[in-house]
This record gives sequence, C-alpha cells and structure tokens, in this order.
Amino acid sequence: MDNSIDKLITYLAKMPGLGKRSATRQALALLQKRDQLLAPLADVMREAYDKVKVCEKCGNFDEISPCHICQNPMRDQQVVCVVKDIADLWAMERMGSFKGTYFILGGLLSASGGTTPESLNIPKLKNRIKEDEIKEIIFALPLTIEGKTTQHYISAELGNMVKCSELAHGVPIGGELEFLDDGTLAEALKSRKEV
Amino acid sequence: MDNSIDKLITYLAKMPGLGKRSATRQALALLQKRDQLLAPLADVMREAYDKVKVCEKCGNFDEISPCHICQNPMRDQQVVCVVKDIADLWAMERMGSFKGTYFILGGLLSASGGTTPESLNIPKLKNRIKEDEIKEIIFALPLTIEGKTTQHYISAELGNMVKCSELAHGVPIGGELEFLDDGTLAEALKSRKEV
Repeated sequence: MDNSIDKLITYLAKMPGLGKRSATRQALALLQKRDQLLAPLADVMREAYDKVKVCEKCGNFDEISPCHICQNPMRDQQVVCVVKDIADLWAMERMGSFKGTYFILGGLLSASGGTTPESLNIPKLKNRIKEDEIKEIIFALPLTIEGKTTQHYISAELGNMVKCSELAHGVPIGGELEFLDDGTLAEALKSRKEV
Repeated sequence: MDNSIDKLITYLAKMPGLGKRSATRQALALLQKRDQLLAPLADVMREAYDKVKVCEKCGNFDEISPCHICQNPMRDQQVVCVVKDIADLWAMERMGSFKGTYFILGGLLSASGGTTPESLNIPKLKNRIKEDEIKEIIFALPLTIEGKTTQHYISAELGNMVKCSELAHGVPIGGELEFLDDGTLAEALKSRKEV
C-alpha cells in the first residue's frame, strides 16, 4: 500500500456507506478536481481535526466549549432536551424550533450491548439540573426498547428533581395511515386530541 | 461559513452522490473517528494531491509519468486499448486479463457536447502508433451513439496505419435473456459462434 492512490481509496472506503467500488469512484472524482475539491477538502479536514472539540456541557461538537448552543443567551438554559447522540441533536437543530439546550447521553441502556447507567453520564446531568436550575427535561430518545428503558430509568432517577416530558408520538405529517406501523397507530389513537 | 464543521459538510457535499444530509452524516462519522479516520484521510488526500500526476503517455493517474503500466516491460506496448476515461481504464485493470497498454481519449465525439476531433488527442495517438510501432488498437468505448461515432472516426483516421478491433458484444455472463435489451440480443445473434 505504498501508492497514494491506493491509500486514498483504502481510507475513503472506511467512510460509512462507501464500499471499495464507490471509494474508487470518489478517489477518481477527487483527483480529477484536485484544485477545486481534493486540496480544499484535505485542508478543511485538517482544520476540523485541529479545531473541533466536544462540548463539556452537552456533548455536542463545536469549536468552542461550552458550545454555541450552551453559550447562547437567547436559548433557555433551564429546558434541556435529552438525546441519544450528536446526530439526533443535529436533527433537532435542523428542525429549528427548539429554543432550549441539550444533553447527549452517548448511548442507551442495553442488556446485551453492555451500556450501563454509569456510562450514561447521569451524575453529570444531575449536577447540571442543580447548577443551571433546570426546570424541564424533554426526552427525545428513539422509540425502541432501549430508548424506552433509558427514558424510564432516567425519569425515575430525576423525577423528584425536575419535570420530565417526552416528544409526542403519532401519525407523521404527510403520513399515510395504510403504511403506518401498528404501534404508532395505536399510540396516535391513545393520545387522540379533541378538535 | 467560518465554522470548520460547516466547511467540512460543504466540501463533503461536493463529492459525487453526496447530498447535504449524507455529507452531514459523513462529517459526524469523521469527527467521531478523528484519529482513526479524519486525520489519516486528510493526510492521504494531501499526499495524493502532491504526488499524483497524469501519465504523459496514456493519460492515467499515477505517481510517475509515464505510469507503471506504460513503463512495465511485461506489458505489450504494441497493443493499445483506447478508452473514454480513467474510470474505464481502471475497470479494464480490475478485470486483470489485459496485458497491453492504454490510451485515454478524455471524451467522445459529440454534436451537442462540443467535443471535436481536435480535443480527442488523435495526433498524439498517431505519434504513439509510429514511435511505439503499435500493431493493434482495441476500442473499449461505450456502446452509445457517441462511442460508436468516435470509434468510427478514429478507425477511419488510423485504419491504414494499424489493425483496429473492438470488444465483443453479446450476452453478459450470468445475464438473463429475458431482461436483456433488444440491441444486445440482436448483436449476440449476429455474432453467434459455432459450438
């Protein structure tokens, strides 16, 4: 593996979703756009490597710690959304209408996967509840066994300190009933609202 | 666009086949594997940028020019496969049983696309035919109008200097007749072989 083209393909193939063949195609495209894409992408990767850190408060990626969200005086520091990982935080931010802050668990309780309550940073969340005088915890965890178990565990731990809520479940906007899973439909029926 | 995370996503989104959303997912994955993937990928991209050049003889990418294929004494310099671009050359090499050398056209004749005979490096190919005493030109061009037109044009130009051949057309290995296009099936019937 001394050739830099082979090395480029090998490392591109480590990116999620890229196999050997698509990595080869990407390498070719990068080499063909060496000045417009290959060089600036290499630079910006190096820059991101040097600058990006993990926010000490919420666990998000940013160039500063605490991150821009945690430092933003326009955001409600007393309302904290609990998410599984950074991808879910970014999904909430993309949506754009949440004006509170976040706490990233970094995983979910799992009997098989070995994630224990200790590895979920619950003490850190407890500290933050006291320090920032948090009023509400909003759970935005996946609707899986692991997500539900985790939410149940954390709300049992914190329920006496702070109000806990979760995202509403129901029929997605634009969703066809016919193609919806039974669990969601049952949940939507149970949580029906008067019109 | 001062934030290095945004810049990383912006440049990743310029890679073929990656939209904004998949670029975001890739950026996250890179940041999460900063030491195993982000840093080495940045390094190897910079290395490829510095080292990879275009072979003066065939047009392939390599760290040396003429490239490893053109310099390899085990390969037949007198048999030249004419391909559209580097991706097609790499496809031939992946196949592995061709022991000649290559010539990359860099495009195909096209009435609409503006590719003219002058931009196809035909004089360069003619020179090579003389210098290397080339005995056979094998066309491995796409079976499109443009590919056929280009092959026709070049073979008319070179036909008196060198033997010209093209890849066989027919039923692909493992191909189901039912799903084969009519043109291929007609070609396979016309080129049928005695068994």
